[in-house]
Amino acid sequence: MLSAAIPVSSPPAPTAGKIMLVGLGPGSQAHLTARARAAIAEADTVIGYVTYIRLVAELLEGKEIIRKSMTEELDRALEALERARQGRKVALISSGDAGVYGMAGPTFEVLFQAGWTPDAEIEVEIVPGASALNTCAALVGAPLTHDFCAISLSDLLTPWPTIARRLDAVAYADFVVALYNPKSGRRAQQIVEAQRIFLRHRRADTPVAIVKSAYRPKQHIAFTTLEHLAEADIGMLSTVLIGNSNTFVRDGLMVTPRGYANKYEVAAGERATLGGEQAGRSLSTGLAGWLETIRASGRSAAELAAEYRLPEDYVAAALTPPPGAAPS
Amino acid sequence: MLSAAIPVSSPPAPTAGKIMLVGLGPGSQAHLTARARAAIAEADTVIGYVTYIRLVAELLEGKEIIRKSMTEELDRALEALERARQGRKVALISSGDAGVYGMAGPTFEVLFQAGWTPDAEIEVEIVPGASALNTCAALVGAPLTHDFCAISLSDLLTPWPTIARRLDAVAYADFVVALYNPKSGRRAQQIVEAQRIFLRHRRADTPVAIVKSAYRPKQHIAFTTLEHLAEADIGMLSTVLIGNSNTFVRDGLMVTPRGYANKYEVAAGERATLGGEQAGRSLSTGLAGWLETIRASGRSAAELAAEYRLPEDYVAAALTPPPGAAPS
Repeated sequence: MLSAAIPVSSPPAPTAGKIMLVGLGPGSQAHLTARARAAIAEADTVIGYVTYIRLVAELLEGKEIIRKSMTEELDRALEALERARQGRKVALISSGDAGVYGMAGPTFEVLFQAGWTPDAEIEVEIVPGASALNTCAALVGAPLTHDFCAISLSDLLTPWPTIARRLDAVAYADFVVALYNPKSGRRAQQIVEAQRIFLRHRRADTPVAIVKSAYRPKQHIAFTTLEHLAEADIGMLSTVLIGNSNTFVRDGLMVTPRGYANKYEVAAGERATLGGEQAGRSLSTGLAGWLETIRASGRSAAELAAEYRLPEDYVAAALTPPPGAAPS
Repeated sequence: MLSAAIPVSSPPAPTAGKIMLVGLGPGSQAHLTARARAAIAEADTVIGYVTYIRLVAELLEGKEIIRKSMTEELDRALEALERARQGRKVALISSGDAGVYGMAGPTFEVLFQAGWTPDAEIEVEIVPGASALNTCAALVGAPLTHDFCAISLSDLLTPWPTIARRLDAVAYADFVVALYNPKSGRRAQQIVEAQRIFLRHRRADTPVAIVKSAYRPKQHIAFTTLEHLAEADIGMLSTVLIGNSNTFVRDGLMVTPRGYANKYEVAAGERATLGGEQAGRSLSTGLAGWLETIRASGRSAAELAAEYRLPEDYVAAALTPPPGAAPS
């Protein structure tokens, strides 16, 4: 856990300062954790983007409030450090989770550059919250369920080729994808590029959900498909969820199956496994079964690599059983 | 939002049944949201894995409690549906977030197969919670910060080639990666394969954090590197976080930079942009700048694709400005 000791460049404060990075979750009172509320209550100073300050206004009486605008993350972190050096307890608030495109990373970068260490007299605590991908997903059904990723389309700090390479990789490998910062007044083309990249791998009718202001008064949910993503109504407060190749929309709910149909007759529950499969055991196409299959096939690494869409060197290594023991 | 009407195959119940899929977060009282507590309080019946039932035991007085073991997710969903058809309010509890490798997906699969629709008299609500990747991240510093993904190493329901392909794609594209279900008594080889795949792309000294039982009494945090991942102590209750190529560990904290160093002199805050960069604007290597650069370069799509590690057809399309308007 993160702990505390003496600050480097100020005289010791009478009481120990503290910085709490608080994830508010989606921004409704009901979805705050008890720890998030307690951390804000504990704070002398609360710093955050004006929308988040407003969201928790009734918890802020008597506290110093510093409102910062969107592009001032580093300044907020520096201000928090200054107050903490004076012995104050500071809550830096973010919507969602502070660790997800939030204040946690920048704050540590600033703290380290300023000579702070976890042994310093300033304690740092990160209070986790549900991120937009979880809260938006909860409103549309069960789109995540299986392997997923989050990609920010903001190129304010990240080169476009890096973003494009990531989009292509996850579209190829069939992840459910949450796009953060999908579009703004100045950045309207990145979502078009993202669509183009996804269409290299994903069907045009792939389900897409667009959720704006989850759990807040102006909440809005829309479903569309990959084909129409570029012209969809998407703004600064939207999160875009792109389904994988198994995701379906039914009765207004977006659901990504967990894979039970690979093993069970779903409606009959866990008693009804399909032929050759066992409850609680790896699939016949799980690691051990797959290794047996490819080793018994007599086929080349190149052929198998093409069939399974895996790197050839990886398949070549897999074809060679380790000396001695059978695969587990 | 998800709503309610008449069930298909039972006589109408006197009161409307309800199924609430509740994410408990990491499993400490402090990290429950107000809505999660309220949903459990509202329930007549609470169904869940015995560990989660125990975690919220003090909220369960007077309720019907159904404990299920790990591989009985479909059965739990069927039982919830039965109770809800009788007009009961049922809370299906998961640790973390119900939508992330949790009960939400399987529950909807079961409900749809049983003929339920959102207009049925059984309302379904998903109460989001912070998932393991967020709560584990909060304990080790700020490892997520930038684009990340979650991959389950469980091949009980997913073919190994699918998992391997995903691991390779995200290692190549430099995501921070959270491995769920990394290892168990029966599945000890998958983590070794994952390490091998990552080493194709990531340095051997890439930081890795292993967090067990986050925010619970037996919490344990360990740092290691990719090189030593295969022999690390990892169990059923562990989440593994693998850093990207910029992630560093310093003073016992794992931090992935947000990219501020691409634009700013970090210690001086937002006033000190590096040459050619502007606060609040895309990087010079953002989409518009990159398109200008490649179009002015005179180089072929093949050369540029190799340099930027992007698909050649994507680069070829990008080299051609759309007729008329300049890129936004």
